[in-house]
Amino acid sequence: MIFSSSLLENAVNEFAKLPGIGKKTALRLVLHLIKQDNAEVNQFSEVIAKMRNEIKFCRRCYNISDAALCNICSNAMRRQDMLCVVENIRDVIAIESTQQFNGIYHVLGGIISPLDGIGPEELTIDSLVDRISKEGITEIIFALSPTIQGDTTIYYISKKLAAQGAKPRPVKITTIARGISFGGELEYADEMTLAKSISNRIPVENFILSGS
Amino acid sequence: MIFSSSLLENAVNEFAKLPGIGKKTALRLVLHLIKQDNAEVNQFSEVIAKMRNEIKFCRRCYNISDAALCNICSNAMRRQDMLCVVENIRDVIAIESTQQFNGIYHVLGGIISPLDGIGPEELTIDSLVDRISKEGITEIIFALSPTIQGDTTIYYISKKLAAQGAKPRPVKITTIARGISFGGELEYADEMTLAKSISNRIPVENFILSGS
Repeated sequence: MIFSSSLLENAVNEFAKLPGIGKKTALRLVLHLIKQDNAEVNQFSEVIAKMRNEIKFCRRCYNISDAALCNICSNAMRRQDMLCVVENIRDVIAIESTQQFNGIYHVLGGIISPLDGIGPEELTIDSLVDRISKEGITEIIFALSPTIQGDTTIYYISKKLAAQGAKPRPVKITTIARGISFGGELEYADEMTLAKSISNRIPVENFILSGS
Repeated sequence: MIFSSSLLENAVNEFAKLPGIGKKTALRLVLHLIKQDNAEVNQFSEVIAKMRNEIKFCRRCYNISDAALCNICSNAMRRQDMLCVVENIRDVIAIESTQQFNGIYHVLGGIISPLDGIGPEELTIDSLVDRISKEGITEIIFALSPTIQGDTTIYYISKKLAAQGAKPRPVKITTIARGISFGGELEYADEMTLAKSISNRIPVENFILSGS
């Protein structure tokens, strides 16, 4: 692509560095911004820079945060003894958007995946184990990807907690239910999911009580 | 989507204002920027703001420009008597990228389309007619969309030029060739295009000389 303006070219190149955005899409976005008011584009630019310069990671749960402690950790209305373990920040946003969980989080920063060179020491597992004994957690909910890597991570952390021994009280360890998606059709579900959903079947009265 | 950080939320909302970018894509882009160095994100932000604040439109051809006169208009190596009329800036970039045209441009800012409320007075047609008589243009190449609106615009401008009368010398008016795309298959071409490509057939010697 040949540009007659270096201002335009630089802007297109910056946008094209973003994941999933090629040169043509970048050009479309930049030409859109050119049509907007200066004030609006300056606001866009300032909000992005401010976000990058001021954003922090919560020192307790590693979630994205405006302050040293995130909104969720510092919210006294939430149960501080129920901990949901997730892979990344996107998962926190997804679970928060369901408005079904009223506890706190712990962001691992990934899952154990030796093929990708991610071992337990790359994740925030030590800090998690530390929190569980110090903060008086009574239930840990694992909300990790339903893959071999996710299961390995759950297994590794559970073993580590059992080895710890010095727990002040027994901790309940659960994982989010796996089964047929809401609105999904049985004939299109894969065998593994269908098999799990049969072996982990739930009594109908529970089902009705849970209101789903 | 529920965010635990207002910095994150604002940045996602700004990205989601861009065309073709929804909330989920915006979040993906923002989380990508969070992983980058501060310096890199500040550069992104500065380049975008600088582009919007400093970009100009060439006072002669209405192309995007860093200065009052664009690189193409001020380039003495280009033929200043051959003028290519295009709809928008994207078309200038597309034609420049072929490296086959060595003249100058005129950006109309659209084509005549009464259904969309675009009449001749919304476009830079008066300025085009003015340029042609003043600048000693010898050939006008129309590179407009091959649609009824494009043809109407060509017809309107040609009539206006003929009515002008006061031309210093005869101007040749051409339009870009329409026919089968390079690599296209005849059986999939629409009837209109195929019919045009037959009625506007070119001698084989010309074809070989043009090197395509």
